[in-house]
Amino acid sequence: CHYTDSPGISGCGNDPPPAGPMMDIQILCVGKIKEEYFARAIAEYLRRLHRYANMKITEVADERAPETLSPAERAAVKKKEGARLHKFLRKDAVTIVLAVEGKSMTSEQFAETIRQYGLVGRSRLDFVIGGSLGLDPSILRQADLLLSFSRFTFPHQLMRLIALEQIYRAFRIINGEPYHK
Amino acid sequence: CHYTDSPGISGCGNDPPPAGPMMDIQILCVGKIKEEYFARAIAEYLRRLHRYANMKITEVADERAPETLSPAERAAVKKKEGARLHKFLRKDAVTIVLAVEGKSMTSEQFAETIRQYGLVGRSRLDFVIGGSLGLDPSILRQADLLLSFSRFTFPHQLMRLIALEQIYRAFRIINGEPYHK
Repeated sequence: CHYTDSPGISGCGNDPPPAGPMMDIQILCVGKIKEEYFARAIAEYLRRLHRYANMKITEVADERAPETLSPAERAAVKKKEGARLHKFLRKDAVTIVLAVEGKSMTSEQFAETIRQYGLVGRSRLDFVIGGSLGLDPSILRQADLLLSFSRFTFPHQLMRLIALEQIYRAFRIINGEPYHK
Repeated sequence: CHYTDSPGISGCGNDPPPAGPMMDIQILCVGKIKEEYFARAIAEYLRRLHRYANMKITEVADERAPETLSPAERAAVKKKEGARLHKFLRKDAVTIVLAVEGKSMTSEQFAETIRQYGLVGRSRLDFVIGGSLGLDPSILRQADLLLSFSRFTFPHQLMRLIALEQIYRAFRIINGEPYHK
């Protein structure tokens, strides 16, 4: 991933991190960010998050998925992408899979969920974001938490940005810090 | 609004618009877009949307809203912003107000909702997005549709982008055109 080793991202932030053990968060996703404006927005939220957590974005390759694919071909795409994702899921991490059909919650409930994981010593979180066709059932079955951001479908590039913003918001809430909407 | 008259936005698109009357959509929002990456992303979705609808973004000024405001002061901020919004709401338009507590729907249901408005000749839509404290109750009462994108709270700049992307997706769905996620 081109963010992980970016000198502009790691080692930034002059404020001391809040008390408590740093969380270790991996965003595991399918496909690249193509639009520069999405890349910049994502880089900005990663920069802000480095005060609160060790952040890592792991991108696995996506398969070509034209509209003409049959249902069987679509399943095959998701299976291939799923196999790539499985390699990077950490056995000792909480696996939070983003899925339209998952559980919806408020920002405050999401913050409380993350805080609770930290309290019980589960400081490693893997967030999984699927590609354009969604996720293989084998990944959904692996989830400790199926999380739904919306009933709407979003493009995966925008979804990555939305997830990072919400994780950042969660840490602001956990630490009682103001954050404008 | 700095988008409305942008030469890069209006008059773009070489493809002919789809059949049927053009919809006329106003995005009515509080406060400016400050981040360049959000401005660029929003400009890109406006550019894409111009094939399907006459798009206009109307920004009204936001009030300063520091965290230290009392509940009464917060209500006063929303009331002032609400009064500014009321001036631009069009009497003959469908008023769609974005609110966490509104109705949630899938992208397909949202597309069908927009299509139905068009079918009954209601081709003017006003989407209203509040500022950092949310919307005045007088605006919520004015809504023909209270629409919830998520139980999560998003920053208003990101909310504007999310709404435009979803409106664009709706037109792709209405016109049976492919659109990657």
